Amino acid sequence: MDFPARTPQPPYYAVVFSSTRSDANGYDVTAQRMLELAATMPGFLGVESARGVDGNGITVSYWASEEAIRHWGAHAEHRLAQAAGRERFYRTFALRVCRVEAQRLFERD
Amino acid sequence: MDFPARTPQPPYYAVVFSSTRSDANGYDVTAQRMLELAATMPGFLGVESARGVDGNGITVSYWASEEAIRHWGAHAEHRLAQAAGRERFYRTFALRVCRVEAQRLFERD
Repeated sequence: MDFPARTPQPPYYAVVFSSTRSDANGYDVTAQRMLELAATMPGFLGVESARGVDGNGITVSYWASEEAIRHWGAHAEHRLAQAAGRERFYRTFALRVCRVEAQRLFERD
Repeated sequence: MDFPARTPQPPYYAVVFSSTRSDANGYDVTAQRMLELAATMPGFLGVESARGVDGNGITVSYWASEEAIRHWGAHAEHRLAQAAGRERFYRTFALRVCRVEAQRLFERD
């Protein structure tokens, strides 16, 4: 995946998911699967993820509409992963749904 | 700083800054100074940052209004840091200004 994501001109939507980790058992496989599954969903525009050695992570996914976000949130396999996240993978998280109003992309020559 | 940030009820604003690194010389000092300076600005609500060992990083700062974001973007010392970012610190970046519409905070018991 491109980093940063090559998103279209705004407006579009973003889901900012900031988390601290707990049990790591099975996390990487589930997280990778969710990235791959999200990329197949209608309205998916891209995703960016970063996790530091302290275990704090931020994943931002980009979507064409709020409906696309709801659709992804309700996907059956994603729902199972969400439950595993609450029960095992995450100690804390914040999930924020945002409307992207403006963007600037920079690439060094 | 709290991670995730303890933001108020939406609506409020977020700046999502996703970057790949280039020259690291002086970066940590500048980045830390910018976090401290941002926290003194009117309308600052919090900040979250994560950078992986691959050098990909995401910093999300939260603000009460778009005016607060503009004010911070125009701060003289921040402008100098922005120039250093374009000239030395970053290979690529995306900066996205967003309106946060909804949030969910989760903390394991």
